[in-house]
Amino acid sequence: MTAPLVDGRRLWASLMEMAEIGAAGEGGVCRPALSDDDRRARERLIAWCRDIGLEVTLDRIGNLFAWRKGRDPARAPVLLGSHLDSQPTGGRFDGALGVLAGLEVLRALAAAGIETAAPLVLANWTNEEGWRFQPAMLGAAVFAGLVPLDSALAAADAEGRTVGSELARIGQAGPDPVGGRAIDSYFELHIEQGPVLEEEGAVVGVVSGALGRRRIEVGVAGEATHAATFPMPRRRDALVGAARMVEAVWREGTALHPAGRATVGLFEVAPSSRNVVPGRVRFVVDIRHPDEAALARAEAELGREFREIAEGLGLGLDIAPGNGYPPVPFDPACVALVREAARALGLPARELPSGAGHDAVQIARVAPAAMIFVPCRRGVSHSPEEAITPDWAEAGANVLLRAVLARAG
Amino acid sequence: MTAPLVDGRRLWASLMEMAEIGAAGEGGVCRPALSDDDRRARERLIAWCRDIGLEVTLDRIGNLFAWRKGRDPARAPVLLGSHLDSQPTGGRFDGALGVLAGLEVLRALAAAGIETAAPLVLANWTNEEGWRFQPAMLGAAVFAGLVPLDSALAAADAEGRTVGSELARIGQAGPDPVGGRAIDSYFELHIEQGPVLEEEGAVVGVVSGALGRRRIEVGVAGEATHAATFPMPRRRDALVGAARMVEAVWREGTALHPAGRATVGLFEVAPSSRNVVPGRVRFVVDIRHPDEAALARAEAELGREFREIAEGLGLGLDIAPGNGYPPVPFDPACVALVREAARALGLPARELPSGAGHDAVQIARVAPAAMIFVPCRRGVSHSPEEAITPDWAEAGANVLLRAVLARAG
Repeated sequence: MTAPLVDGRRLWASLMEMAEIGAAGEGGVCRPALSDDDRRARERLIAWCRDIGLEVTLDRIGNLFAWRKGRDPARAPVLLGSHLDSQPTGGRFDGALGVLAGLEVLRALAAAGIETAAPLVLANWTNEEGWRFQPAMLGAAVFAGLVPLDSALAAADAEGRTVGSELARIGQAGPDPVGGRAIDSYFELHIEQGPVLEEEGAVVGVVSGALGRRRIEVGVAGEATHAATFPMPRRRDALVGAARMVEAVWREGTALHPAGRATVGLFEVAPSSRNVVPGRVRFVVDIRHPDEAALARAEAELGREFREIAEGLGLGLDIAPGNGYPPVPFDPACVALVREAARALGLPARELPSGAGHDAVQIARVAPAAMIFVPCRRGVSHSPEEAITPDWAEAGANVLLRAVLARAG
Repeated sequence: MTAPLVDGRRLWASLMEMAEIGAAGEGGVCRPALSDDDRRARERLIAWCRDIGLEVTLDRIGNLFAWRKGRDPARAPVLLGSHLDSQPTGGRFDGALGVLAGLEVLRALAAAGIETAAPLVLANWTNEEGWRFQPAMLGAAVFAGLVPLDSALAAADAEGRTVGSELARIGQAGPDPVGGRAIDSYFELHIEQGPVLEEEGAVVGVVSGALGRRRIEVGVAGEATHAATFPMPRRRDALVGAARMVEAVWREGTALHPAGRATVGLFEVAPSSRNVVPGRVRFVVDIRHPDEAALARAEAELGREFREIAEGLGLGLDIAPGNGYPPVPFDPACVALVREAARALGLPARELPSGAGHDAVQIARVAPAAMIFVPCRRGVSHSPEEAITPDWAEAGANVLLRAVLARAG
């Protein structure tokens, strides 16, 4: 059996058509999970799936599956897909590329008249982005048994509307139980959301796994005093302490490179007035690494440094663990299929981990999984400036097709 | 002529009665400039002044003057006073102490039947605090010719109401021209708003002058990228750069001690999201020193260091001079009268500069001026926790009385 190639122009046309749903300024997309635009996107996808004879099912958390039968009724299905929801100022490709490349794979197989041994299932997971409803990757997490269905349905947005009520409102609350059935494997194509592939001239990222994440929530307490009247030795300046901690995080992140990284992203100063020595700073440290022990070491080392800095300046310090997760290696056999597909297609490829979370990271807990990355311009995502070329989309979809076909037989 | 003593209990009772106007939670005061509570405070003051036969006048910016005639019609008046407006979360003594101690001085002189050669004028300056209307010390600045009357009257609060319309609304827009008449001198009693006097066991601060202020408005521009996916060497992290600049300001401030100080008070990070490398930081440096050349040196040195830090991290840097003012030495003869008064009263005193701005700092541009500080608990001001003892208030008022009496003859 020779693998066919996808139709790159058809794929690009579908991406552009999907990008009109929830189109926001400057080429961006705003498709909040379970919004009316999410409903329109799902309805468009369902129509496209039915056009090629796929049967569409929905589970109770709204995960959408489009089924293509296999030759062997005993085989568990091979899944491929991603998500159609977006960030509030999202781009056209984050998520949508994986779903529509999956659709294109099924279209190309249909056009070539190829039937696989195992069934193929295109998946669109509910609420991957996690900004309207927390946590992120919600549909995949329930599917993987990591979040109970009841608590997922009860998750509320800022206006108090729940996942359950919004699913019902947009007609996407399905009858099927969530997960709990055998699946053979899961493959997801996604934009890198980082700069590595483009800078190194690679068109395909063979994703080895997902970095684990540790978060540390830090509060630094000094004394808010008058900047004009308090002599320097009498001050307890929370900002000076927090600034030293930011420097410590930068040093730690640099020491973790190239495998890992560390960031202070959220950083809030109070009272933040020109005239007042800062009395409080609150910030969050985000550490990423493929090795759990390295994450634990970095967290412990930063805690030690933070305490030393706070003591040196007479500051109060409050450290709490934030929301983290362990590293997730992808399935070696599935990763090898991706590597082999890129090689067979003659595409320049590079192995790299996923820094961010993806639906595949959740599914990897219950099934062999792998991901394919394609570059995005300057690594920009979650922005209207998010951009890829039609060639990159086509290359990623061809790798996805070969890997899935090899797996499904 | 022997100087009488003030009535400390009467002074304290007036302070407590005034603190009921605009009383806020936990012993605090909220008396925004030209608010209805400011009007009530002024009306109370006017009634008290008339009780002891003073004639009250208002100028066009609402500065309130209560006149006590002198023996010598050729002599220019000696002024004493402060302000009755407060911070939104102000205390009971910042400003009110200087006005009501001035009133108490005039009451004590009246009770003792003492007539001075020069007239005495109690002053309540408009909008010293500067949070409702900018700039601060507005009435005194117009009086000193530093701010044109028209622009002062046009200054608007956050709701767009102007100084001019609010003066008219509360009946405090006077007919008199602002300033431009000879005054002999100005004496102002104020809480220190710093910790020095209390820590050193001094009851009187002999204020040598006011520190000059330089402000530097700084913008640091990096690139807001994904914290999970961007390798450390690829980042341009505005927060890391700004943190190093905060450390540089701390070092500079420490080097300026004890004469001066330097602070980063306002500090804003964008987007300030757990998941995003900070793309922009905006902060303001506040430098205080009694010597203009030292201020200029510190500003230049910090600018040099900031540029070096930004270059090292590939960051954009925008530096603009903020709102500053030169050091203001007080009049040596007036300062000597304060020093001598404290000595004559046997009060432990200490020479120190004023770090913060005060009405006296403005008036010093057009007349000999001096200030008297009394301690405040832990240096706290602009807070309901602002606290002084009745003994401190009485001691400050007695020094004020002796200094004014010596000057007015």
